[in-house]
Amino acid sequence: MMQRTDALTLDQHDLLAPLRDQFALPDGVIYLDGNSLGARPKAALARAQQVIEQEWGHDLIRSWNQSGWFDLPSRLGDLLAPLIGAAAGDIVVTDTTSLNLFKALAGALQRQASASTSAARRIIVSERSNFPTDLYMAEGLARWLARGYQLRLVDSPDELAAAIDSDTAIVMLTHVNYRSGRLLDMAAINQMAHAHGALTVWDLAHSAGALPIDLQGDDADYAVGCTYKYLNGGPGAPAFIWVAPRHQASFDHPLSGWWGHAAPFAMDPAFVPATGIRRALCGTQPVVSLALVECGLALFGHTSMAALRAKSLALTDLFITLVEQRCAAHPLQLATPRPHAQRGSHVSFTHPHGYPVMQALIARGVIGDYREPHILRFGFTPLYTRFVDVWDAVDTLAHILDQQDYDLDGERALVT
Amino acid sequence: MMQRTDALTLDQHDLLAPLRDQFALPDGVIYLDGNSLGARPKAALARAQQVIEQEWGHDLIRSWNQSGWFDLPSRLGDLLAPLIGAAAGDIVVTDTTSLNLFKALAGALQRQASASTSAARRIIVSERSNFPTDLYMAEGLARWLARGYQLRLVDSPDELAAAIDSDTAIVMLTHVNYRSGRLLDMAAINQMAHAHGALTVWDLAHSAGALPIDLQGDDADYAVGCTYKYLNGGPGAPAFIWVAPRHQASFDHPLSGWWGHAAPFAMDPAFVPATGIRRALCGTQPVVSLALVECGLALFGHTSMAALRAKSLALTDLFITLVEQRCAAHPLQLATPRPHAQRGSHVSFTHPHGYPVMQALIARGVIGDYREPHILRFGFTPLYTRFVDVWDAVDTLAHILDQQDYDLDGERALVT
Repeated sequence: MMQRTDALTLDQHDLLAPLRDQFALPDGVIYLDGNSLGARPKAALARAQQVIEQEWGHDLIRSWNQSGWFDLPSRLGDLLAPLIGAAAGDIVVTDTTSLNLFKALAGALQRQASASTSAARRIIVSERSNFPTDLYMAEGLARWLARGYQLRLVDSPDELAAAIDSDTAIVMLTHVNYRSGRLLDMAAINQMAHAHGALTVWDLAHSAGALPIDLQGDDADYAVGCTYKYLNGGPGAPAFIWVAPRHQASFDHPLSGWWGHAAPFAMDPAFVPATGIRRALCGTQPVVSLALVECGLALFGHTSMAALRAKSLALTDLFITLVEQRCAAHPLQLATPRPHAQRGSHVSFTHPHGYPVMQALIARGVIGDYREPHILRFGFTPLYTRFVDVWDAVDTLAHILDQQDYDLDGERALVT
Repeated sequence: MMQRTDALTLDQHDLLAPLRDQFALPDGVIYLDGNSLGARPKAALARAQQVIEQEWGHDLIRSWNQSGWFDLPSRLGDLLAPLIGAAAGDIVVTDTTSLNLFKALAGALQRQASASTSAARRIIVSERSNFPTDLYMAEGLARWLARGYQLRLVDSPDELAAAIDSDTAIVMLTHVNYRSGRLLDMAAINQMAHAHGALTVWDLAHSAGALPIDLQGDDADYAVGCTYKYLNGGPGAPAFIWVAPRHQASFDHPLSGWWGHAAPFAMDPAFVPATGIRRALCGTQPVVSLALVECGLALFGHTSMAALRAKSLALTDLFITLVEQRCAAHPLQLATPRPHAQRGSHVSFTHPHGYPVMQALIARGVIGDYREPHILRFGFTPLYTRFVDVWDAVDTLAHILDQQDYDLDGERALVT
């Protein structure tokens, strides 16, 4: 069986290991929750000081021009583009994932409504286990439009082929499932959707920055995602939206605020959408949070998504192997697919006492998280997670389970 | 005629003068644009450091609970409530003004649709000179709902009485006009709207923090506003939404994201709205920008809205008087109402060369802004503007005009 020294040897040979120095990670903590909130790039503190002291405090209103605040959504989008197989000019960083999903869904429905010459397409296909807010936003849009749009939810991605048909307007999926960590085959699903005349809307929350994505090469239609997980943009940092170039000229959504206007400062009482992806913008953005996104994105310039993916798979392989070896006596069940082609960058195990076990881990400095029902979730961010962290985390888990050292009656926190 | 020493005397007797020390204002600048971007509270830098170093960097994901990130929209709403005549628990700080307006309009339309037993109300009354994004959001919502909703725009608030009738679903107004600075009579308009069965949606962007507002006492229905102008929350800081308690239980809007769910972490695939105002929440908020809002709000604890209003009127009175005395030879026209009851906290003058005159002022350290067409706009934030600033600003303006010291051929900046 592997020993701790073997993990240390893996770290010694890891070409990405020096990138960890770019992050401010607390002592005594093994952070396996970067899939929920990415760690802090060291550069973020100085950047915040610059924005607050110089740009806000000293330059004041002039910063909209001279510090490029108004262009930030586009500039950050251009930095993000190569990480997800998009071209510069096709992404903006703005608003929240939920809101961007709403815009993408609305745009896709509108495109279908204007394209359909025969029967109307009224079905939005998704997974029942999709991240709930995605379902809620689709439900809200469908209910309000009151034109008979309905969600058709499958229990497993394996049922998608049967669920997508000529009634399907949109296939709305999260690329990596937030709970199971299952990675979907984006190219195959786009092809399947298009064969039936459906459009795809992808949520990249758990894949952007974690693994290579090729939106253009895989022929996706719309995509949204979050910058505060694997992209390390800061808590609740603004999200992104990408629209395939072929859909941009007709992209139309109801959240038509002044930042999406062709001439925002002409103060025209009638709305005329901007050319290209800036029509996805709406209101004034939270500049301090937005500016910090750059500190996370900049770190990807030191490596490649292929190298990050290789390390991510090595980390998750090691974690699965060690847990199954060292916790074999306990009722842990792997909830994440074993094949690499179906695995994101986090690993989930179910345990009947998942919540108290996770609390015990956190109390010992191993920070993962818990998701209903019964799921212990562990994220592995290849930019800063070490192989020895994997070894130590499993060691702690094995100890807790072997000693039954967790509190079955503990109170639950508000946010789990 | 008043001399500079008289202005200095006014400052010596100003009980609010010490509050200026709470702000980091640059040397050599007279900042009269706090109605666009409020100045920086000194406390904001330390707060950002705390959020970034300790809460994000050190405590990481645990901060959602232990630093109260998840509760921030409500906690900030409670701090804001007394400034605008609302009760604690009835406001959240979240998203952007445009998006919150969309929610409020949708909620009001839904309420009207479910209340109307006879003829449907299909008209949204507003001002043609309302801030454009308000009109755009209403237009986007109306167009997408495709149920015959239409905007009816008046050219002056004096035409509102004639424009509001039994077809009116909503009266949507900005309390203080962003260009003219005209303050509307909220109580009278609410009463007029209600007499016709209409609901009111108020945008407080240019009044919250600038003058006393009594949403409950004036019987308003819905209100939204911005925290980065007179509330000094930071560039693009999240906005707020208030719903009258009587409308909260039925408040329904299409942007139904997980933060507005009754049990966000139960991960239920079906949406069930939270009780009360938290149902106005949607997605994950930009925590760093959001946290800084508190630094601006906290400063209002040192004074009262009545005291701030008294100083604001004294500042704008002085500005109008001095401009009319010292620039009488030039084609400046006051665009802001003279009566106190109709004046907000900024003053606008038109000038045929408004844009280059404003650029010349800015080049000399007097920062106001320009708004199409021909409008020189000057904001007076009573928390940090001095009487001597008013004197010096007018002195600079008079000099520029007397010497024709501005560049008629200068290039225009992107953001004006």
